[in-house]
Amino acid sequence: MQIAVIGASNASPEEVEAAETVGYLLAQNGAIVVCGGLGGVMEAACRGAKEGGGTTVGIISGTNGENAYVDVVVRSDLGHARNTLVVSSADAVVAVGGEYGTLSEIALALKMKKSVFGVKTWDIDGVFPCSTPEEAVLTAVRAARLSR
Amino acid sequence: MQIAVIGASNASPEEVEAAETVGYLLAQNGAIVVCGGLGGVMEAACRGAKEGGGTTVGIISGTNGENAYVDVVVRSDLGHARNTLVVSSADAVVAVGGEYGTLSEIALALKMKKSVFGVKTWDIDGVFPCSTPEEAVLTAVRAARLSR
Amino acid sequence: MQIAVIGASNASPEEVEAAETVGYLLAQNGAIVVCGGLGGVMEAACRGAKEGGGTTVGIISGTNGENAYVDVVVRSDLGHARNTLVVSSADAVVAVGGEYGTLSEIALALKMKKSVFGVKTWDIDGVFPCSTPEEAVLTAVRAARLSR
Amino acid sequence: MQIAVIGASNASPEEVEAAETVGYLLAQNGAIVVCGGLGGVMEAACRGAKEGGGTTVGIISGTNGENAYVDVVVRSDLGHARNTLVVSSADAVVAVGGEYGTLSEIALALKMKKSVFGVKTWDIDGVFPCSTPEEAVLTAVRAARLSR
Repeated sequence: MQIAVIGASNASPEEVEAAETVGYLLAQNGAIVVCGGLGGVMEAACRGAKEGGGTTVGIISGTNGENAYVDVVVRSDLGHARNTLVVSSADAVVAVGGEYGTLSEIALALKMKKSVFGVKTWDIDGVFPCSTPEEAVLTAVRAARLSR
Repeated sequence: MQIAVIGASNASPEEVEAAETVGYLLAQNGAIVVCGGLGGVMEAACRGAKEGGGTTVGIISGTNGENAYVDVVVRSDLGHARNTLVVSSADAVVAVGGEYGTLSEIALALKMKKSVFGVKTWDIDGVFPCSTPEEAVLTAVRAARLSR
Repeated sequence: MQIAVIGASNASPEEVEAAETVGYLLAQNGAIVVCGGLGGVMEAACRGAKEGGGTTVGIISGTNGENAYVDVVVRSDLGHARNTLVVSSADAVVAVGGEYGTLSEIALALKMKKSVFGVKTWDIDGVFPCSTPEEAVLTAVRAARLSR
Repeated sequence: MQIAVIGASNASPEEVEAAETVGYLLAQNGAIVVCGGLGGVMEAACRGAKEGGGTTVGIISGTNGENAYVDVVVRSDLGHARNTLVVSSADAVVAVGGEYGTLSEIALALKMKKSVFGVKTWDIDGVFPCSTPEEAVLTAVRAARLSR
C-alpha cells in the first residue's frame, strides 16, 4: 500500500506537526509514504514515517536535494510534471495545507479518481475534509485497501 | 506570443462557443494558440483560431487523436503530465469552464506565476474572472506582452 | 508532415552546414521541422527551415533559451526526458552527427518504429545511412508520407 | 546506494539468469535495485534482489503491470520518457542484453555522466564491458560509492 502525502515546502508549524503525525501513523499502518521528497510537509511526513518504522519514497522535481528521511529517491528532473507521478503512484492521497503545487496534485489525483483526504487544505469538491491527522490516515488507509 | 486555452474535452455548448470565440480573437491578435489538442474546449479554441487565421499547437497526452484544427502536434505520450507542458509553454492562460484536469492546469500555471484569465471556470484565488471571451482575450494578450 | 532533426548543440562546422541544408530542404518539401530548440545542429536546422520558408518547433528541455529561429516553443522543463517528445512528435527523423543525447533519440525513435536517416551519425542497426543532406531529406520525406 | 538494472522485457534465458544474479548480488551489497518494473530482465533483477534480501523499485511506463517482485512502484504513465527516470535515479547502471529501449537508457546514462557496466549489451563507447554478472556488480557498486 502506497499513500501520498502532499503539501507545501513552505509550511507552518501546525502543518509540519500534522504532516509528521500523518507520516508516523501511515507507517504504523503499514503504508509506504510517497511524497515530493523536499522540505516542509514532505520532510515532516518522511520524518514521521521513519519514526514509525516505515519506508519513504521521494519523487523529486530536480536531480538532488531530497530531505534526510527519504529511503528511495526518484530523481525525476521533470520540474512541476513530477507532481503527476506523486499522485499516480499513490493508492490514496493525504493533503496537509498546501499552496498552488498542492492544489495541482489534488486536482490530478481527483482526475485519476484517487481518494483525497484533506487536513486544513484547499476546499475543493471531491476532497474529504478531515479534522485530524488521525482521521485522515484512518480513512486514507481504508480507501487505499478498497482501491486495490 | 503563445497563449494557452484550457478547458474540458467534455464541454457544454456555451463553453464550446466561448472557446471558439477565444481562439478566434487570439488569432486575430497575433497569438499562437496552445492547448491539449483534443476535443471540447480544445477543439473549439483551435477551430476558432483557424477561422481567425492563426496557428494552433496541440500538446496531446497520448500519441494520436489530435483534433482536426491542430497545426503542430506534440505527441507527448506523458498522460496527465502533459498538462504541465501546456501551461509552461504559454505566456498567459485562458481557462474556459473545465473539470479537474483544467483545475490542475490553473494551479500549475499559478505556481509558475503565469497570469490566468477565467471564463466561467474554477473560482481559485489568483485567477482573474472575466465576463466575456472578449475581456479574457484582451487581458490575456496584454499580460502575455508584459511577461516577455 | 513533421520531421525531427536531431544532433548535438556542440556541432562541427560540417554538421552545422549539413543541418542547415536539411532544414532548408525539409521546409521546401512542406515539412514542419521539429527539434530540441537549442543551439548547434538544432539552431542550424531551424535557420535553414526559416530560409526555406518553413515552420519550426523547438521542444526545449528547460523553460527558456530557445534559438532565434524557433516559431513554436514547447517549454517542456522535462530535462533529458524531452528527447522522447522530439522523436515521438515526428513522422520521420533525420540525425546529423550527434553525441549521447542524439544516440538516445535515435534509440527511442527506433523503439517507436520511426524511420531514422543519418548523416555522419551513430552507426546503429536500423538507421539508414545517407551520404548527403539531400538524400536524407528525400528519403525522410518519403518515409513520413508512407507513415501517415 | 541505488543501482539501475536495465534490459529488455523480451529477454533470453541467459539474460534472465544474468539479471537475476546481478539483482541478487546488488542486494547482498546493500544496493537498492531500480528498474523499469516490468518483465524479462527487469523481473529477473527484482526477483534476484528479493532473494538477496534487498529492496526493489520499479518505475513503470504505464499505471499498472509491475512484476511481482517490485517493492516500490512508481506509476509514471510517461511512456518511453520513463526510461530517463530509471537512469537518473541511479548512482550507477548495469545493462544486461537489451534492445532499443535499453540503448536509449545507456545513452541517457552516459549523457548524465553515470557509469554504465554492460553484460552482453550494446557495444557503445563509454560502456564498461563486463564478462560476468559478478564483475558488473563489483564495479558498479564501487562506481556508485565513488559517485556519492
